[in-house]
Amino acid sequence: MNSLEEVEDFVRNGHRHYLPHLSIDPVIFGYHDQQLKILLLNWKGLNGWGLPGGFIQRREPLSQAAHRILQERTGLENVFLQQFHTFGDSPYRLQERNPREFFEKYGVDMGEDNWLFERTLSVGYFALVDYSKVNVRTDFFTQNYQWCDVKEIPSLLFDHNEAVDKALATLRLQIYHQPIGYKLLPEKFTLPEIHTLYETILGKELDPRNFAKKLVALGLIKKLAEQRAIGPHRSPYLYQFEKETYEDALKQGIVHTY
Amino acid sequence: MNSLEEVEDFVRNGHRHYLPHLSIDPVIFGYHDQQLKILLLNWKGLNGWGLPGGFIQRREPLSQAAHRILQERTGLENVFLQQFHTFGDSPYRLQERNPREFFEKYGVDMGEDNWLFERTLSVGYFALVDYSKVNVRTDFFTQNYQWCDVKEIPSLLFDHNEAVDKALATLRLQIYHQPIGYKLLPEKFTLPEIHTLYETILGKELDPRNFAKKLVALGLIKKLAEQRAIGPHRSPYLYQFEKETYEDALKQGIVHTY
Repeated sequence: MNSLEEVEDFVRNGHRHYLPHLSIDPVIFGYHDQQLKILLLNWKGLNGWGLPGGFIQRREPLSQAAHRILQERTGLENVFLQQFHTFGDSPYRLQERNPREFFEKYGVDMGEDNWLFERTLSVGYFALVDYSKVNVRTDFFTQNYQWCDVKEIPSLLFDHNEAVDKALATLRLQIYHQPIGYKLLPEKFTLPEIHTLYETILGKELDPRNFAKKLVALGLIKKLAEQRAIGPHRSPYLYQFEKETYEDALKQGIVHTY
Repeated sequence: MNSLEEVEDFVRNGHRHYLPHLSIDPVIFGYHDQQLKILLLNWKGLNGWGLPGGFIQRREPLSQAAHRILQERTGLENVFLQQFHTFGDSPYRLQERNPREFFEKYGVDMGEDNWLFERTLSVGYFALVDYSKVNVRTDFFTQNYQWCDVKEIPSLLFDHNEAVDKALATLRLQIYHQPIGYKLLPEKFTLPEIHTLYETILGKELDPRNFAKKLVALGLIKKLAEQRAIGPHRSPYLYQFEKETYEDALKQGIVHTY
Protein backbone atom coordinates (compact mmCIF):
# COMPACT_ATOMS: atom_id res chain seq x y z
CA MET A 1 0.00 0.00 0.00
CA ASN A 2 1.51 3.25 -1.12
CA SER A 3 -1.37 5.74 -1.22
CA LEU A 4 -4.05 6.89 1.20
CA GLU A 5 -6.70 5.57 -1.23
CA GLU A 6 -5.22 2.09 -1.07
CA VAL A 7 -5.12 2.23 2.72
CA GLU A 8 -8.76 3.34 2.92
CA ASP A 9 -9.81 0.50 0.66
CA PHE A 10 -7.80 -1.97 2.76
CA VAL A 11 -9.42 -0.82 5.99
CA ARG A 12 -12.99 -0.72 4.64
CA ASN A 13 -13.04 -3.65 2.22
CA GLY A 14 -10.07 -5.79 3.24
CA HIS A 15 -12.31 -8.46 4.78
CA ARG A 16 -13.64 -9.24 1.27
CA HIS A 17 -10.12 -9.94 -0.02
CA TYR A 18 -8.33 -11.32 3.03
CA LEU A 19 -8.94 -13.96 5.71
CA PRO A 20 -9.52 -12.25 9.03
CA HIS A 21 -7.83 -13.55 12.22
CA LEU A 22 -4.56 -14.52 10.52
CA SER A 23 -1.50 -12.50 9.57
CA ILE A 24 1.98 -13.40 8.34
CA ASP A 25 4.96 -11.50 9.79
CA PRO A 26 8.21 -12.78 8.27
CA VAL A 27 11.53 -12.63 10.11
CA ILE A 28 14.22 -11.90 7.50
CA PHE A 29 17.71 -12.87 8.62
CA GLY A 30 20.50 -11.24 6.66
CA TYR A 31 24.08 -12.50 6.71
CA HIS A 32 27.02 -10.57 5.35
CA ASP A 33 30.63 -10.05 6.34
CA GLN A 34 30.50 -11.97 9.65
CA GLN A 35 27.30 -10.31 10.82
CA LEU A 36 23.79 -11.72 11.30
CA LYS A 37 21.02 -9.12 11.15
CA ILE A 38 17.26 -8.95 10.84
CA LEU A 39 15.17 -6.58 8.78
CA LEU A 40 13.11 -4.12 10.82
CA LEU A 41 10.68 -1.57 9.46
CA ASN A 42 9.79 1.68 11.22
CA TRP A 43 6.04 2.17 11.51
CA LYS A 44 5.35 5.85 11.07
CA GLY A 45 2.09 6.12 12.97
CA LEU A 46 3.25 3.90 15.82
CA ASN A 47 6.72 5.35 16.15
CA GLY A 48 8.44 2.02 16.62
CA TRP A 49 10.21 -0.88 14.92
CA GLY A 50 8.58 -4.09 13.86
CA LEU A 51 8.60 -6.91 11.31
CA PRO A 52 7.09 -6.62 7.85
CA GLY A 53 3.61 -8.18 7.75
CA GLY A 54 0.41 -8.77 5.83
CA PHE A 55 -2.74 -10.84 5.42
CA ILE A 56 -3.63 -13.99 3.45
CA GLN A 57 -5.93 -13.58 0.45
CA ARG A 58 -9.17 -15.55 0.63
CA ARG A 59 -8.14 -18.19 -1.92
CA GLU A 60 -4.38 -17.88 -1.74
CA PRO A 61 -2.18 -20.80 -0.63
CA LEU A 62 -0.56 -20.00 2.71
CA SER A 63 3.03 -20.38 1.50
CA GLN A 64 2.29 -18.25 -1.57
CA ALA A 65 0.91 -15.53 0.72
CA ALA A 66 4.17 -15.57 2.69
CA HIS A 67 6.22 -15.09 -0.50
CA ARG A 68 3.89 -12.35 -1.76
CA ILE A 69 3.98 -10.43 1.53
CA LEU A 70 7.76 -10.66 1.65
CA GLN A 71 8.02 -9.47 -1.94
CA GLU A 72 5.56 -6.60 -1.49
CA ARG A 73 7.08 -5.35 1.73
CA THR A 74 10.78 -5.86 1.05
CA GLY A 75 11.27 -6.46 -2.68
CA LEU A 76 12.71 -9.93 -1.93
CA GLU A 77 11.85 -12.69 -4.42
CA ASN A 78 12.72 -16.37 -4.81
CA VAL A 79 14.21 -16.71 -1.34
CA PHE A 80 14.18 -19.69 0.97
CA LEU A 81 11.25 -18.97 3.28
CA GLN A 82 10.33 -21.40 5.99
CA GLN A 83 7.33 -21.63 8.25
CA PHE A 84 8.46 -22.07 11.86
CA HIS A 85 5.61 -21.37 14.32
CA THR A 86 2.08 -20.02 14.57
CA PHE A 87 1.68 -17.49 17.36
CA GLY A 88 -1.59 -17.39 19.28
CA ASP A 89 -0.71 -17.37 22.98
CA SER A 90 0.68 -13.93 23.90
CA PRO A 91 -1.62 -11.24 25.36
CA TYR A 92 -1.29 -9.35 22.06
CA ARG A 93 -2.55 -12.39 20.14
CA LEU A 94 -5.44 -12.97 22.57
CA GLN A 95 -6.98 -9.53 22.55
CA GLU A 96 -9.23 -8.00 20.03
CA ARG A 97 -7.36 -5.03 18.59
CA ASN A 98 -8.07 -1.33 18.40
CA PRO A 99 -6.10 0.37 15.65
CA ARG A 100 -8.71 3.18 15.38
CA GLU A 101 -6.37 5.83 16.75
CA PHE A 102 -3.64 4.72 14.36
CA PHE A 103 -5.80 5.00 11.25
CA GLU A 104 -7.46 8.24 12.40
CA LYS A 105 -4.02 9.87 12.19
CA TYR A 106 -4.26 9.35 8.45
CA GLY A 107 -7.88 10.45 8.28
CA VAL A 108 -9.25 6.92 7.77
CA ASP A 109 -12.57 6.31 9.54
CA MET A 110 -12.79 2.63 10.58
CA GLY A 111 -16.51 2.65 11.30
CA GLU A 112 -18.00 0.03 13.64
CA ASP A 113 -17.22 -3.69 13.61
CA ASN A 114 -14.22 -3.23 11.34
CA TRP A 115 -12.51 -6.51 10.43
CA LEU A 116 -9.19 -5.13 11.73
CA PHE A 117 -10.64 -4.97 15.27
CA GLU A 118 -10.62 -8.75 15.55
CA ARG A 119 -8.13 -10.98 17.30
CA THR A 120 -5.35 -11.99 14.90
CA LEU A 121 -2.99 -14.96 15.10
CA SER A 122 0.28 -14.85 13.21
CA VAL A 123 1.89 -17.55 11.08
CA GLY A 124 5.66 -17.11 11.45
CA TYR A 125 8.05 -17.59 8.52
CA PHE A 126 11.75 -16.89 8.36
CA ALA A 127 14.17 -16.33 5.50
CA LEU A 128 17.96 -16.19 5.37
CA VAL A 129 19.51 -13.92 2.73
CA ASP A 130 22.66 -11.98 1.92
CA TYR A 131 21.53 -8.55 3.07
CA SER A 132 24.04 -6.74 0.88
CA LYS A 133 22.00 -7.91 -2.12
CA VAL A 134 18.60 -6.69 -0.91
CA ASN A 135 16.85 -3.49 -1.98
CA VAL A 136 14.28 -3.00 0.74
CA ARG A 137 10.94 -1.52 -0.32
CA THR A 138 8.90 0.42 2.20
CA ASP A 139 5.28 1.51 1.92
CA PHE A 140 2.70 3.95 3.26
CA PHE A 141 3.09 2.79 6.87
CA THR A 142 6.80 2.12 6.94
CA GLN A 143 9.09 4.89 5.79
CA ASN A 144 12.37 3.67 7.22
CA TYR A 145 14.05 0.33 7.65
CA GLN A 146 17.23 -1.03 9.19
CA TRP A 147 19.23 -4.24 9.20
CA CYS A 148 19.65 -4.72 12.94
CA ASP A 149 22.29 -7.02 14.45
CA VAL A 150 20.61 -9.96 16.24
CA LYS A 151 22.68 -9.10 19.32
CA GLU A 152 21.12 -5.61 19.47
CA ILE A 153 17.40 -6.11 18.77
CA PRO A 154 15.45 -3.27 20.42
CA SER A 155 12.04 -3.58 22.04
CA LEU A 156 9.72 -4.20 19.06
CA LEU A 157 6.07 -3.40 18.38
CA PHE A 158 3.30 -5.91 19.11
CA ASP A 159 4.66 -9.38 20.04
CA HIS A 160 7.43 -9.23 17.44
CA ASN A 161 10.27 -9.84 19.92
CA GLU A 162 8.75 -13.24 20.65
CA ALA A 163 8.69 -14.02 16.92
CA VAL A 164 12.33 -12.94 16.46
CA ASP A 165 13.52 -14.97 19.48
CA LYS A 166 11.69 -18.09 18.33
CA ALA A 167 12.91 -17.71 14.74
CA LEU A 168 16.52 -17.36 15.90
CA ALA A 169 16.23 -20.37 18.21
CA THR A 170 14.74 -22.40 15.34
CA LEU A 171 17.47 -21.32 12.92
CA ARG A 172 20.18 -22.20 15.45
CA LEU A 173 18.74 -25.64 16.16
CA GLN A 174 18.09 -26.29 12.50
CA ILE A 175 21.63 -25.51 11.40
CA TYR A 176 22.54 -28.89 12.92
CA HIS A 177 20.16 -30.85 10.75
CA GLN A 178 19.66 -28.73 7.64
CA PRO A 179 22.41 -27.30 5.43
CA ILE A 180 22.69 -23.54 4.96
CA GLY A 181 25.06 -21.23 3.20
CA TYR A 182 24.40 -21.92 -0.46
CA LYS A 183 23.44 -18.34 -1.28
CA LEU A 184 25.39 -16.75 1.56
CA LEU A 185 28.93 -17.66 0.52
CA PRO A 186 30.81 -17.23 -2.76
CA GLU A 187 30.61 -20.27 -5.06
CA LYS A 188 34.10 -21.30 -3.95
CA PHE A 189 34.95 -20.55 -0.35
CA THR A 190 37.62 -21.25 2.24
CA LEU A 191 37.06 -23.25 5.41
CA PRO A 192 37.47 -20.11 7.55
CA GLU A 193 34.66 -18.47 5.54
CA ILE A 194 32.11 -21.23 6.11
CA HIS A 195 33.36 -21.64 9.67
CA THR A 196 32.68 -17.96 10.36
CA LEU A 197 29.22 -18.20 8.80
CA TYR A 198 28.26 -21.02 11.17
CA GLU A 199 29.82 -19.32 14.20
CA THR A 200 28.01 -16.08 13.42
CA ILE A 201 24.63 -17.75 13.08
CA LEU A 202 25.13 -19.87 16.19
CA GLY A 203 26.58 -16.95 18.15
CA LYS A 204 29.32 -19.15 19.60
CA GLU A 205 32.72 -20.64 18.82
CA LEU A 206 33.08 -23.99 17.08
CA ASP A 207 36.10 -26.29 17.04
CA PRO A 208 37.62 -25.50 13.59
CA ARG A 209 38.94 -28.98 12.89
CA ASN A 210 35.87 -31.00 13.94
CA PHE A 211 33.55 -28.62 12.14
CA ALA A 212 35.24 -28.92 8.75
CA LYS A 213 35.71 -32.67 9.09
CA LYS A 214 32.03 -33.13 9.82
CA LEU A 215 30.84 -31.10 6.82
CA VAL A 216 33.17 -33.05 4.53
CA ALA A 217 32.18 -36.38 6.13
CA LEU A 218 28.50 -35.54 5.63
CA GLY A 219 29.27 -34.96 1.96
CA LEU A 220 27.93 -31.39 2.08
CA ILE A 221 31.13 -29.71 0.91
CA LYS A 222 34.11 -30.97 -1.07
CA LYS A 223 37.70 -29.82 -1.24
CA LEU A 224 38.85 -28.49 -4.62
CA ALA A 225 42.36 -28.76 -6.07
CA GLU A 226 42.31 -24.95 -6.29
CA GLN A 227 43.81 -22.60 -3.71
CA ARG A 228 43.21 -18.90 -3.10
CA ALA A 229 46.27 -16.70 -2.62
CA ILE A 230 45.53 -14.32 0.24
CA GLY A 231 49.06 -13.35 1.24
CA PRO A 232 52.66 -14.54 1.30
CA HIS A 233 52.72 -18.18 2.36
CA ARG A 234 48.92 -18.09 2.80
CA SER A 235 46.89 -19.86 0.15
CA PRO A 236 44.12 -21.93 1.72
CA TYR A 237 42.34 -24.58 -0.32
CA LEU A 238 38.93 -23.74 -1.73
CA TYR A 239 35.77 -25.73 -1.08
CA GLN A 240 32.45 -25.99 -2.82
CA PHE A 241 28.97 -27.20 -1.85
CA GLU A 242 28.00 -30.64 -3.17
CA LYS A 243 24.76 -29.55 -4.80
CA GLU A 244 23.08 -32.96 -4.84
CA THR A 245 23.85 -33.92 -1.24
CA TYR A 246 22.91 -30.40 -0.20
CA GLU A 247 19.49 -30.56 -1.89
CA ASP A 248 18.82 -34.01 -0.42
CA ALA A 249 19.76 -32.81 3.06
CA LEU A 250 17.48 -29.79 2.64
CA LYS A 251 14.56 -32.13 1.99
CA GLN A 252 15.32 -34.97 4.37
CA GLY A 253 17.45 -33.34 7.04
CA ILE A 254 21.04 -34.13 7.98
CA VAL A 255 20.84 -37.38 9.85
CA HIS A 256 23.30 -37.44 12.73
CA THR A 257 24.23 -40.95 13.76
CA TYR A 258 22.95 -42.32 17.00
CA MET B 1 -20.53 -32.63 21.32
CA ASN B 2 -22.64 -35.56 22.30
CA SER B 3 -26.22 -34.61 21.49
CA LEU B 4 -28.06 -33.31 18.45
CA GLU B 5 -28.91 -30.13 20.37
CA GLU B 6 -25.21 -29.41 20.93
CA VAL B 7 -24.46 -30.02 17.27
CA GLU B 8 -27.27 -27.67 16.16
CA ASP B 9 -25.98 -24.96 18.46
CA PHE B 10 -22.42 -25.49 17.13
CA VAL B 11 -23.53 -25.17 13.51
CA ARG B 12 -25.80 -22.15 14.04
CA ASN B 13 -23.93 -20.19 16.72
CA GLY B 14 -20.40 -21.53 16.61
CA HIS B 15 -19.05 -18.37 14.97
CA ARG B 16 -19.87 -16.45 18.17
CA HIS B 17 -17.71 -18.80 20.24
CA TYR B 18 -14.98 -19.85 17.82
CA LEU B 19 -12.57 -18.17 15.40
CA PRO B 20 -13.58 -19.05 11.85
CA HIS B 21 -10.92 -20.07 9.28
CA LEU B 22 -8.76 -22.01 11.74
CA SER B 23 -9.00 -25.54 13.10
CA ILE B 24 -6.68 -27.77 15.13
CA ASP B 25 -6.36 -31.43 14.15
CA PRO B 26 -3.91 -33.21 16.45
CA VAL B 27 -1.88 -36.23 15.37
CA ILE B 28 -1.60 -38.54 18.40
CA PHE B 29 1.27 -40.98 18.17
CA GLY B 30 0.99 -43.96 20.51
CA TYR B 31 3.94 -46.20 21.36
CA HIS B 32 3.60 -49.54 23.09
CA ASP B 33 5.33 -52.89 22.86
CA GLN B 34 7.52 -52.10 19.83
CA GLN B 35 4.72 -50.54 17.83
CA LEU B 36 4.12 -46.94 16.76
CA LYS B 37 0.49 -46.10 16.02
CA ILE B 38 -1.71 -43.07 15.49
CA LEU B 39 -5.19 -42.43 16.76
CA LEU B 40 -7.87 -42.35 14.06
CA LEU B 41 -11.56 -41.63 14.57
CA ASN B 42 -14.30 -42.92 12.32
CA TRP B 43 -16.64 -40.14 11.17
CA LYS B 44 -20.11 -41.59 11.03
CA GLY B 45 -21.64 -39.27 8.45
CA LEU B 46 -18.60 -39.34 6.19
CA ASN B 47 -17.91 -43.04 6.47
CA GLY B 48 -14.14 -42.63 6.73
CA TRP B 49 -11.20 -42.28 9.09
CA GLY B 50 -9.64 -38.99 10.14
CA LEU B 51 -7.85 -37.15 12.93
CA PRO B 52 -9.65 -35.67 15.92
CA GLY B 53 -10.23 -31.94 15.44
CA GLY B 54 -11.85 -28.77 16.70
CA PHE B 55 -11.91 -24.98 16.67
CA ILE B 56 -10.22 -22.26 18.74
CA GLN B 57 -12.42 -20.26 21.10
CA ARG B 58 -12.48 -16.53 20.45
CA ARG B 59 -10.33 -15.58 23.44
CA GLU B 60 -8.54 -18.86 24.04
CA PRO B 61 -4.74 -19.15 23.78
CA LEU B 62 -3.83 -21.33 20.79
CA SER B 63 -1.88 -23.92 22.79
CA GLN B 64 -4.67 -24.15 25.36
CA ALA B 65 -7.14 -24.80 22.54
CA ALA B 66 -4.96 -27.67 21.32
CA HIS B 67 -4.96 -29.26 24.79
CA ARG B 68 -8.73 -28.74 25.21
CA ILE B 69 -9.53 -30.28 21.82
CA LEU B 70 -7.31 -33.26 22.55
CA GLN B 71 -8.93 -33.72 25.95
CA GLU B 72 -12.49 -33.36 24.64
CA ARG B 73 -12.01 -35.69 21.71
CA THR B 74 -9.77 -38.34 23.24
CA GLY B 75 -9.80 -37.97 27.01
CA LEU B 76 -6.05 -37.31 27.01
CA GLU B 77 -4.78 -34.76 29.55
CA ASN B 78 -1.37 -33.38 30.52
CA VAL B 79 0.43 -34.81 27.52
CA PHE B 80 3.37 -33.38 25.63
CA LEU B 81 1.71 -31.66 22.69
CA GLN B 82 3.81 -29.86 20.12
CA GLN B 83 2.88 -27.54 17.31
CA PHE B 84 4.63 -28.62 14.11
CA HIS B 85 3.07 -26.96 11.04
CA THR B 86 0.15 -24.85 9.88
CA PHE B 87 -1.55 -26.26 6.78
CA GLY B 88 -2.94 -23.86 4.21
CA ASP B 89 -1.68 -25.01 0.81
CA SER B 90 -3.57 -28.17 -0.19
CA PRO B 91 -6.68 -27.97 -2.41
CA TYR B 92 -8.78 -28.92 0.63
CA ARG B 93 -7.37 -25.97 2.59
CA LEU B 94 -7.91 -23.55 -0.32
CA GLN B 95 -11.55 -24.22 -1.03
CA GLU B 96 -14.55 -22.95 0.75
CA ARG B 97 -16.32 -25.95 2.22
CA ASN B 98 -19.77 -27.41 1.83
CA PRO B 99 -20.70 -29.67 4.72
CA ARG B 100 -24.44 -29.08 4.10
CA GLU B 101 -25.09 -32.64 2.99
CA PHE B 102 -23.23 -33.98 6.01
CA PHE B 103 -25.28 -31.99 8.53
CA GLU B 104 -28.56 -32.58 6.68
CA LYS B 105 -28.15 -36.29 7.43
CA TYR B 106 -28.65 -35.36 11.07
CA GLY B 107 -31.49 -32.98 10.30
CA VAL B 108 -29.43 -29.84 10.94
CA ASP B 109 -30.29 -26.99 8.58
CA MET B 110 -27.18 -24.87 7.97
CA GLY B 111 -29.00 -21.91 6.43
CA GLU B 112 -27.13 -19.52 4.14
CA ASP B 113 -23.67 -18.04 4.77
CA ASN B 114 -22.96 -20.48 7.55
CA TRP B 115 -19.54 -19.96 9.19
CA LEU B 116 -18.64 -23.60 8.48
CA PHE B 117 -18.78 -22.91 4.72
CA GLU B 118 -15.60 -20.84 4.87
CA ARG B 119 -12.08 -21.85 3.99
CA THR B 120 -10.31 -23.29 7.03
CA LEU B 121 -6.58 -23.58 7.69
CA SER B 122 -5.34 -26.09 10.23
CA VAL B 123 -2.73 -25.67 12.95
CA GLY B 124 -1.03 -29.04 13.35
CA TYR B 125 0.02 -30.42 16.74
CA PHE B 126 1.37 -33.82 17.60
CA ALA B 127 1.58 -35.78 20.82
CA LEU B 128 3.44 -38.95 21.75
CA VAL B 129 1.83 -41.17 24.40
CA ASP B 130 1.73 -44.75 25.63
CA TYR B 131 -1.44 -45.88 23.89
CA SER B 132 -2.07 -48.69 26.36
CA LYS B 133 -2.82 -46.00 28.97
CA VAL B 134 -5.37 -44.03 26.92
CA ASN B 135 -9.15 -44.25 27.20
CA VAL B 136 -10.33 -42.76 23.95
CA ARG B 137 -13.53 -40.73 24.11
CA THR B 138 -15.68 -40.43 21.00
CA ASP B 139 -18.56 -38.03 20.38
CA PHE B 140 -21.64 -37.45 18.24
CA PHE B 141 -19.69 -37.53 14.97
CA THR B 142 -17.15 -40.22 15.76
CA GLN B 143 -18.48 -43.49 17.07
CA ASN B 144 -15.45 -45.68 16.50
CA TYR B 145 -11.72 -45.26 16.84
CA GLN B 146 -8.58 -47.27 16.17
CA TRP B 147 -4.89 -47.12 16.94
CA CYS B 148 -3.47 -47.65 13.47
CA ASP B 149 0.14 -48.69 12.83
CA VAL B 150 2.06 -45.89 11.07
CA LYS B 151 3.09 -48.43 8.43
CA GLU B 152 -0.56 -49.11 7.56
CA ILE B 153 -2.27 -45.70 7.49
CA PRO B 154 -5.28 -45.87 5.15
CA SER B 155 -6.47 -43.08 2.89
CA LEU B 156 -7.84 -40.50 5.34
CA LEU B 157 -10.57 -37.86 5.13
CA PHE B 158 -9.82 -34.27 4.10
CA ASP B 159 -6.05 -33.55 3.90
CA HIS B 160 -5.26 -35.62 6.99
CA ASN B 161 -2.72 -37.90 5.27
CA GLU B 162 -0.58 -34.83 4.62
CA ALA B 163 -0.77 -33.91 8.32
CA VAL B 164 0.17 -37.44 9.42
CA ASP B 165 3.11 -37.64 6.98
CA LYS B 166 4.46 -34.26 8.05
CA ALA B 167 4.02 -35.06 11.76
CA LEU B 168 5.89 -38.35 11.37
CA ALA B 169 8.71 -36.70 9.41
CA THR B 170 8.97 -34.01 12.11
CA LEU B 171 9.01 -36.57 14.92
CA ARG B 172 11.70 -38.59 13.14
CA LEU B 173 13.92 -35.57 12.53
CA GLN B 174 13.32 -34.24 16.02
CA ILE B 175 14.33 -37.46 17.76
CA TYR B 176 17.92 -36.49 16.87
CA HIS B 177 17.80 -33.19 18.70
CA GLN B 178 15.12 -33.59 21.35
CA PRO B 179 14.94 -36.39 23.89
CA ILE B 180 11.89 -38.67 23.98
CA GLY B 181 10.86 -41.69 25.95
CA TYR B 182 10.30 -40.32 29.44
CA LYS B 183 6.68 -41.44 29.62
CA LEU B 184 7.01 -44.27 27.11
CA LEU B 185 9.42 -46.54 28.98
CA PRO B 186 9.35 -47.94 32.53
CA GLU B 187 11.25 -45.80 35.05
CA LYS B 188 14.17 -48.24 34.87
CA PHE B 189 14.77 -49.78 31.47
CA THR B 190 17.33 -51.89 29.62
CA LEU B 191 19.36 -50.68 26.65
CA PRO B 192 17.45 -53.02 24.28
CA GLU B 193 14.19 -51.40 25.45
CA ILE B 194 15.22 -47.83 24.65
CA HIS B 195 16.98 -49.03 21.52
CA THR B 196 13.74 -50.63 20.29
CA LEU B 197 11.78 -47.46 21.08
CA TYR B 198 14.10 -45.38 18.89
CA GLU B 199 14.19 -47.97 16.10
CA THR B 200 10.39 -48.22 16.10
CA ILE B 201 9.92 -44.46 15.89
CA LEU B 202 12.59 -44.04 13.22
CA GLY B 203 11.37 -47.08 11.30
CA LYS B 204 14.94 -48.29 10.74
CA GLU B 205 17.79 -50.14 12.39
CA LEU B 206 20.35 -48.36 14.55
CA ASP B 207 23.83 -49.56 15.51
CA PRO B 208 23.23 -50.86 19.07
CA ARG B 209 26.64 -49.89 20.45
CA ASN B 210 26.91 -46.39 18.99
CA PHE B 211 23.34 -45.60 19.97
CA ALA B 212 23.76 -46.44 23.66
CA LYS B 213 27.17 -44.76 23.87
CA LYS B 214 25.75 -41.55 22.39
CA LEU B 215 22.80 -41.37 24.82
CA VAL B 216 25.15 -41.93 27.76
CA ALA B 217 27.71 -39.45 26.38
CA LEU B 218 24.97 -36.83 25.99
CA GLY B 219 24.11 -37.37 29.66
CA LEU B 220 20.50 -38.25 28.82
CA ILE B 221 20.56 -41.69 30.45
CA LYS B 222 22.72 -43.20 33.17
CA LYS B 223 23.64 -46.77 33.98
CA LEU B 224 22.41 -48.02 37.37
CA ALA B 225 24.17 -50.58 39.57
CA GLU B 226 20.98 -52.64 39.36
CA GLN B 227 20.38 -55.50 36.91
CA ARG B 228 17.16 -57.15 35.76
CA ALA B 229 17.05 -60.94 35.73
CA ILE B 230 15.30 -62.01 32.52
CA GLY B 231 16.60 -65.57 32.22
CA PRO B 232 19.46 -67.87 33.08
CA HIS B 233 22.75 -66.01 32.50
CA ARG B 234 20.77 -63.01 31.19
CA SER B 235 20.59 -60.04 33.52
CA PRO B 236 21.16 -56.77 31.64
CA TYR B 237 21.97 -53.59 33.54
CA LEU B 238 19.19 -51.11 34.05
CA TYR B 239 19.31 -47.47 32.94
CA GLN B 240 17.40 -44.40 33.95
CA PHE B 241 16.77 -40.99 32.38
CA GLU B 242 18.80 -38.11 33.83
CA LYS B 243 15.84 -35.88 34.60
CA GLU B 244 17.76 -32.60 34.67
CA THR B 245 19.72 -33.11 31.44
CA TYR B 246 16.56 -34.43 29.84
CA GLU B 247 14.52 -31.34 30.77
CA ASP B 248 17.33 -29.03 29.58
CA ALA B 249 17.57 -30.87 26.28
CA LEU B 250 13.79 -30.63 25.84
CA LYS B 251 14.04 -26.86 26.14
CA GLN B 252 17.28 -26.18 24.30
CA GLY B 253 17.62 -29.15 22.00
CA ILE B 254 20.37 -31.75 21.98
CA VAL B 255 23.36 -30.01 20.48
CA HIS B 256 25.31 -32.34 18.23
CA THR B 257 28.90 -31.26 17.83
CA TYR B 258 30.06 -29.81 14.56
